[in-house]
Amino acid sequence: MTDALKNDRFLRALRREPTDTTPIWVMRQAGRYLPEYRATRERAGSFMGLAQNPEYACEVTLQPLERFELDAAILFSDILTIPDAMGLGLSFAHGEGPQFAHPVRNAADVAKLAVPDMDGELRYVMDAVRLIRRELRGRVPLIGFSGSPWTLACYMVEGAGSRDFATLKAMCWNEPKLAHQLLDTLAQSVATYLIAQAAAGAQALMIFDTWGGLLGPAPFREFSLRYMAQIVAALKADATARELPVILFSKGAGAHLADMAGSGCAALGVDWTIDLADARRAVAGKVALQGNLDPAVMRASPEVIRREARAVLDSYGNHPGHVFNLGHGITPEVDPDNLKVLVDEVHAYGCILRGS
Amino acid sequence: MTDALKNDRFLRALRREPTDTTPIWVMRQAGRYLPEYRATRERAGSFMGLAQNPEYACEVTLQPLERFELDAAILFSDILTIPDAMGLGLSFAHGEGPQFAHPVRNAADVAKLAVPDMDGELRYVMDAVRLIRRELRGRVPLIGFSGSPWTLACYMVEGAGSRDFATLKAMCWNEPKLAHQLLDTLAQSVATYLIAQAAAGAQALMIFDTWGGLLGPAPFREFSLRYMAQIVAALKADATARELPVILFSKGAGAHLADMAGSGCAALGVDWTIDLADARRAVAGKVALQGNLDPAVMRASPEVIRREARAVLDSYGNHPGHVFNLGHGITPEVDPDNLKVLVDEVHAYGCILRGS
Repeated sequence: MTDALKNDRFLRALRREPTDTTPIWVMRQAGRYLPEYRATRERAGSFMGLAQNPEYACEVTLQPLERFELDAAILFSDILTIPDAMGLGLSFAHGEGPQFAHPVRNAADVAKLAVPDMDGELRYVMDAVRLIRRELRGRVPLIGFSGSPWTLACYMVEGAGSRDFATLKAMCWNEPKLAHQLLDTLAQSVATYLIAQAAAGAQALMIFDTWGGLLGPAPFREFSLRYMAQIVAALKADATARELPVILFSKGAGAHLADMAGSGCAALGVDWTIDLADARRAVAGKVALQGNLDPAVMRASPEVIRREARAVLDSYGNHPGHVFNLGHGITPEVDPDNLKVLVDEVHAYGCILRGS
Repeated sequence: MTDALKNDRFLRALRREPTDTTPIWVMRQAGRYLPEYRATRERAGSFMGLAQNPEYACEVTLQPLERFELDAAILFSDILTIPDAMGLGLSFAHGEGPQFAHPVRNAADVAKLAVPDMDGELRYVMDAVRLIRRELRGRVPLIGFSGSPWTLACYMVEGAGSRDFATLKAMCWNEPKLAHQLLDTLAQSVATYLIAQAAAGAQALMIFDTWGGLLGPAPFREFSLRYMAQIVAALKADATARELPVILFSKGAGAHLADMAGSGCAALGVDWTIDLADARRAVAGKVALQGNLDPAVMRASPEVIRREARAVLDSYGNHPGHVFNLGHGITPEVDPDNLKVLVDEVHAYGCILRGS
């Protein structure tokens, strides 16, 4: 656990310290666009078979690092591990996204929920973190993660994916106490989960609030941000986790960045619908920023990928505190060679930008 | 055509003139949440059978006005009438959304496209406008509308709905001249279409840029806003259409409101992810605003609907230039009585807000 990092650009950028160039990793870098990922997944038999087996999870986590000069690894897992461990019966219907056999709809359902056992139902996640950390041998830092309470609740109450997750929203409006009870149980669970990942060896933590952007400003603060801030506070109270920078990412939440910057996190993920110069103004130097190339650019030519990567770097400018990423996960039809083009351009132009 | 309007609150608000209370209409007010709409649709046999028959289109356009004190009617039609009239073969697969039999993928496909004949393939739309206008007998103004060039192109190039419409984005990056040729043909078509709707009796015009929010700031200006501004300019050059206020609505485009306010339009639609006070600051008094209650609130109790409606009205404040609407279309599972609660509260509290 104490091996020195050979590449700490990512952690330095999250602390807003100077770096030789801009660090980059991409969401879903261990994903279906890689033929070696598809091969491992085939051996595993299913997505959950892949995610719940520490050896497979370690294997696919490391695959993109073999191809590209990425500056961070991220635990291969699913955002819905916590509700699955709570007994809701997660499955992935063919091409349909996640589904829960036992959605949470009423007070009795919420009352049954308890913080899962990190040495029990979720031990496979900690085993994967330990194994990946060992196999990384200090090449780059390992990011642990969780879905946000709001986003977990979206799926748990709806029972599946949705365009608007109106079932949870209706609960928030009609039974706000019940919604808060659910979100509080989830915030405790996520905090416990991330503390366990930190203890197992994660070196940074990210909270994916995939559906926070579905909320208006006031409900976002009340039902999403409040619980992410509660988690950050719980992490700060833990001797190991307090050392880890925390990244919050609410997709479609460009209007909420100023609020989010006050949550105690180290960095905010930003999607591509807002200019990073505007995002920097919004957060007023309080946090680092991670983003924000439109993932659809990865389907363009190498020339366009390079040009758009430089535009993102220029929009942040020559300031500390930028981690390059896509504004959302890399998609399955992307040619892996295009990610090499991106990573190399970010590192090369990041040097030029610094005049180094 | 020259009958005086009995209720011109909506048009006055779009011109930012004082009104006795805040006008309200809601997107998809003629929709599946109404049992009488479902009955007419059943008689019509299909969605396109409903949209392409002027008598049915008139019938469903008027249905919500019989139940609620709405301040505007909107033509019942589909946003994809133009590409359908261009010969792309629109159909609605069961529960799957729109599909085109002949998507637009290359230069030959784009070269084949021509502005449709407003007295030919699209005559049914103008017939519907004329009939609705006659049947309205001046009760409230009639809104005509079209999809934006960007949004039409999204479906035409993808061939169906999509989460990210990456096929059109790839065309924009890899073959920008071809994308601009397509968007220019669509802008000419939309301008001609809206001018024809104005001539047939529409009293305000709205452009739905449903997917503009998928673009970052620079591509939004280049591929979406530019063509909406081109349409507004063409409308201003037409003796009839120039009198009609134009509303632009790009969903998820909170970051682009300042750019959009300079397009020559009268008003901007705003979704619920941005506070109307912030939106007012962004547009700096240049345009009226239309919005922005979260449509999911319509599933809450009457008390919550009233409270949230007042919050939206308060966020705009006692200034001229607010048209109340949902931030997106009303959804099928909403109890129609809840829309009555909303309409009545907006009118009642709109009076209180004005101290009248």
